Amino acid sequence: MEDPAKKYFNCNDKERAVFEAGIKMGTIYHQFVGTPINKSNVEVLEKAIEESVKVQPFVEDCTVKIKREMIKKDRGVYKYLTLTGDMLEVDLVIRYNNVRAYCSMRYIEEMKYPLMFVREIRVD
Amino acid sequence: MEDPAKKYFNCNDKERAVFEAGIKMGTIYHQFVGTPINKSNVEVLEKAIEESVKVQPFVEDCTVKIKREMIKKDRGVYKYLTLTGDMLEVDLVIRYNNVRAYCSMRYIEEMKYPLMFVREIRVD
Amino acid sequence: MEDPAKKYFNCNDKERAVFEAGIKMGTIYHQFVGTPINKSNVEVLEKAIEESVKVQPFVEDCTVKIKREMIKKDRGVYKYLTLTGDMLEVDLVIRYNNVRAYCSMRYIEEMKYPLMFVREIRVD
Amino acid sequence: MEDPAKKYFNCNDKERAVFEAGIKMGTIYHQFVGTPINKSNVEVLEKAIEESVKVQPFVEDCTVKIKREMIKKDRGVYKYLTLTGDMLEVDLVIRYNNVRAYCSMRYIEEMKYPLMFVREIRVD
Repeated sequence: MEDPAKKYFNCNDKERAVFEAGIKMGTIYHQFVGTPINKSNVEVLEKAIEESVKVQPFVEDCTVKIKREMIKKDRGVYKYLTLTGDMLEVDLVIRYNNVRAYCSMRYIEEMKYPLMFVREIRVD
Repeated sequence: MEDPAKKYFNCNDKERAVFEAGIKMGTIYHQFVGTPINKSNVEVLEKAIEESVKVQPFVEDCTVKIKREMIKKDRGVYKYLTLTGDMLEVDLVIRYNNVRAYCSMRYIEEMKYPLMFVREIRVD
Repeated sequence: MEDPAKKYFNCNDKERAVFEAGIKMGTIYHQFVGTPINKSNVEVLEKAIEESVKVQPFVEDCTVKIKREMIKKDRGVYKYLTLTGDMLEVDLVIRYNNVRAYCSMRYIEEMKYPLMFVREIRVD
Repeated sequence: MEDPAKKYFNCNDKERAVFEAGIKMGTIYHQFVGTPINKSNVEVLEKAIEESVKVQPFVEDCTVKIKREMIKKDRGVYKYLTLTGDMLEVDLVIRYNNVRAYCSMRYIEEMKYPLMFVREIRVD
């Protein structure tokens, strides 16, 4: 895909790829945190998050897992929770020209933080 | 379902049913507006919205349609849009004891407004 | 304010008032849960939530409190949290014709649930 | 600020800076799009968005403008709108070690798209 926005950027292709990755990570967290969830809708919600990321530009692949052990717990009288960042495991591949950025989100116990991070940047 | 929250309310069952309906309508709009969308993910997004509403208490049925004619338009160079309220058509049935509230969301052209409204309240 | 949407509704003024209240409660929760927060921005966020509710129709008053004791805790290495429903305390007054609906959101410890409820409906 | 997450990253400081910038851009769009808005709350909403970004790690500065000409229009009978991406103008400075990334969001008319882009990356 040729990029109609190229002239607005002043960075190299690796930097562009991770910038795009960051946008998608912020999208996932801030669009979907708060969504009502229990065992009955966890799969369709994972799929909907994945597919909504994939319609954004430069996304080659995206996998979203919501931790089953966190929604099994019988919290609350109404038998559902709302999605929080610590339930999410995301793996994302951004492709920009001949660069691929592999990024992830994981809840890091020692940091008590849902960290979004760059695992690797590869050039073809 | 017996309602563990009953003691906190000071209203009758019809009023309770429409209050619960209002909550779900606000949920749909403000949780999902902004989600990236095109033809490829519209169906799974509709389904995910429906199912996330159904996990909330007192929801007997929920149908969500995203207007296909509004996402067919070739807006933007990246071939996707983000969800707006005027794309949404929602029909919701809340059941509280022997009351059912039938509520909907439609974009009303003459008001230029995505209206949430109560179509009918029925008692068994 | 005369109501241009009246013809779409099939319910009385008390039912309409609590339906509108429910919408606003859903709005608050699902629009703002997930927002980054610490001591430095808690006040402006409370104010912004209140004011965004007040631009919606039929809102006579809205007070939003984010529990200070929940954001004082030193969670996470980056010294901030994201807003969750159990941090929120909301009091809302809806006015529809000569009816006022007084509604609230509180985290109910025994239910482990951020409950939205109708405290009172008054007629002038 | 020393970075407790450094070991999870496999990229240089410029790439890290723009990754962090992308996250914040996605946060702004997907957290706040959909918020009810008119002239009365536009200033406090701008301020609340700015301050919520500034509590996130590595943000040195953030300015958010909501285009006044887009909310002056008398759309809808209830005299308010909900925030859309094309109303937003954002300027963001991320600082990571001795790198600064200057990024922006603008609605680009010829693309019909709210573009997030990297204006410059500077090293001290």
